[in-house]
Amino acid sequence: MSNAPTPAAGHMPKPGSQSALRQRNQRLIIETLRELGALSQAELARATGLSTATISNIVKALSAEGLTTTHPTTSSGRRALAVSLLETPEIAAGIDFGRSHVRVVLASPGLIVKAEKFAPLPVGHLASESIATAAAMLADLLAESGIERGQVKGAGVGVPGPIDHRTGTVIRGAILPEWVGVNIVARLEEALDMPIFADNDANLGALAQVTWGEHKAARDLVFLKIGSGIGAGLILNGAPYYGHTGITGEIGHATIFDQGLVCRCGNRGCLETVASTAVMIELLSRGESETLTVGAIIRHAMAGDSATLRVIDDAGMAVGRAIANVANMINPEIIVVGGPLAALGETLLNPIRRGLIRHAVPAIGEGTTVVMSSLGDRAEALGAISLALSRRGLPQDRR
Amino acid sequence: MSNAPTPAAGHMPKPGSQSALRQRNQRLIIETLRELGALSQAELARATGLSTATISNIVKALSAEGLTTTHPTTSSGRRALAVSLLETPEIAAGIDFGRSHVRVVLASPGLIVKAEKFAPLPVGHLASESIATAAAMLADLLAESGIERGQVKGAGVGVPGPIDHRTGTVIRGAILPEWVGVNIVARLEEALDMPIFADNDANLGALAQVTWGEHKAARDLVFLKIGSGIGAGLILNGAPYYGHTGITGEIGHATIFDQGLVCRCGNRGCLETVASTAVMIELLSRGESETLTVGAIIRHAMAGDSATLRVIDDAGMAVGRAIANVANMINPEIIVVGGPLAALGETLLNPIRRGLIRHAVPAIGEGTTVVMSSLGDRAEALGAISLALSRRGLPQDRR
Repeated sequence: MSNAPTPAAGHMPKPGSQSALRQRNQRLIIETLRELGALSQAELARATGLSTATISNIVKALSAEGLTTTHPTTSSGRRALAVSLLETPEIAAGIDFGRSHVRVVLASPGLIVKAEKFAPLPVGHLASESIATAAAMLADLLAESGIERGQVKGAGVGVPGPIDHRTGTVIRGAILPEWVGVNIVARLEEALDMPIFADNDANLGALAQVTWGEHKAARDLVFLKIGSGIGAGLILNGAPYYGHTGITGEIGHATIFDQGLVCRCGNRGCLETVASTAVMIELLSRGESETLTVGAIIRHAMAGDSATLRVIDDAGMAVGRAIANVANMINPEIIVVGGPLAALGETLLNPIRRGLIRHAVPAIGEGTTVVMSSLGDRAEALGAISLALSRRGLPQDRR
Repeated sequence: MSNAPTPAAGHMPKPGSQSALRQRNQRLIIETLRELGALSQAELARATGLSTATISNIVKALSAEGLTTTHPTTSSGRRALAVSLLETPEIAAGIDFGRSHVRVVLASPGLIVKAEKFAPLPVGHLASESIATAAAMLADLLAESGIERGQVKGAGVGVPGPIDHRTGTVIRGAILPEWVGVNIVARLEEALDMPIFADNDANLGALAQVTWGEHKAARDLVFLKIGSGIGAGLILNGAPYYGHTGITGEIGHATIFDQGLVCRCGNRGCLETVASTAVMIELLSRGESETLTVGAIIRHAMAGDSATLRVIDDAGMAVGRAIANVANMINPEIIVVGGPLAALGETLLNPIRRGLIRHAVPAIGEGTTVVMSSLGDRAEALGAISLALSRRGLPQDRR
């Protein structure tokens, strides 16, 4: 995918405006320098088709921001100024809040991880406490790694719920009901003293697949996160997709059984009521002396326990049915499954594929690849870093 | 939406390539001239940020293609060449093949319809016969309107089924089984002697809404065509969306009843088995002396016949349930309903909205607008004209 900034509403200049034109030309210059190395301004003009005046203005601005440097050279025997990209000391942060954890990662625009911390959070944690925890973790990471706060150009933040991109606020439907109505962007900007870019965690998982992950060539990708909730993130036409108000990927609320269990969203028989880890735990804990964990379910499945395998199979088929309806509409190249069940591998992928083939039109069922995410439980935090880098206009190297 | 060319695979240069750069710069020049009127090359360079060499090369190519003209002028007291867009005599054609009709429309890049013909086709018509019919209709239209064939820069063609954008071939799943495997692009290029751009008819209906229709400001729009089949076309992030292989919008095959009727796609209980006009006709023709038509169903509904209203209500609720699952994923701003039932208006829209609100997450159910298309049964042919104009690089005026 291109590293173009994500098209969320409210953050981007209007297409066709002067600032959009300038941003487009600035990106073109940075990408050209990254690809071809140091160039004179005349060479930059030839390589981009831009006028030397445009080049000169933008290079001046880039140098002022510390993104490029100029040094004397000769071009065709004449003295000239060579422009090169600074290997910047800039860092971006990625913060992933889950139902029961927070992870903070620091990385360079070259997508090299510099430092990383994980902490459990109590279920039902309040936004204020978790933000304080993340702020303390970031301070520790900076101190341990010798990175100064001023080097951190911004932080991407993942939250397990929909975010209204117009206001930066967590909205109803989140796995964290305690966070609904919290302006996560404003609160974190205050606590961390840096620009904050917030997004739904599944959207960031999707972004990570095409930046950090194995699927950089995919233009149309669905990232499906199966956890205590079920959500999806979309990469469409090579860019993160946010829809009209930023509430996308709510596949957990696809109707599976018209008269099924009541869901937290207020409907009945949603996918989440038959295929989330919470439902698996409830089904499989009956008759056990204590409530199972996801880890125990994975161990029992690996040991061949038939009830566990049946519950996973039924859940996978339901997930496959829901993604069939999605794939029929948007024809993705690949569906990447993430979340805490990733260790199940083919045990979970097989029923998902069967459900997909059973319910999709044949050409879609046969033509859509379904795989596990190779980024494990770091996908969301790594995607958060990519979000911060692209919003700050720092093109990421492909690793 | 922007009038950027549609991103179907196989027809577009790779992003970032030299030809993509040139095409982007050419589009920028045409749009600037359209917006600001005649400009000198120096003024064009200032307005676009492109170099004068780039401007000069592209203007030369545009003049050679008959798209621009140059004439002497003065700029800041000095002699200069003014470049202006030719009010071109160019025409694009739109051809819409249906299960039982073909429509041919000619229009200018300014989206002024110049001539139009409609003809019924027998159900089960063969591609060769229908192509000959369309070719004869086009010849008649040209003769009647005094437009020369050379003026017609290309034709967009809508077909009621998925088209493999890599090969231009109608693929399995089409409402016209007789057309499966036909290379519609090659066959029409031969018959009409002009560039042909083919697409699914629902995709063209969607494109028409944001070019000819009332929804030019919509960036994320679903066009839902309810006829003897049910299909959807998508505008996402302001551009037609084609997915990985071009098979999108197959909402007619969303599973509604797990153990329902067998569908022509090979699955069971698809939306088409409960909500197409074919199903309505079958349900309502029982006990009638002859098979009803869609027109009769509309008349009976308007007259308040309770069985007819119940069948429409059930169909609408099922459509609403299917679009709820879609809206949960892609969060469109607006869903536009088209097809032969459009005259039912609120009688059909009401159950669709009820189904949407019942099955979508609350913020999506409440936030998604559902309306009837105002373009009637011409939407697909008008969208075909927009497709041809954009693929030929002729920016359309907004009407």
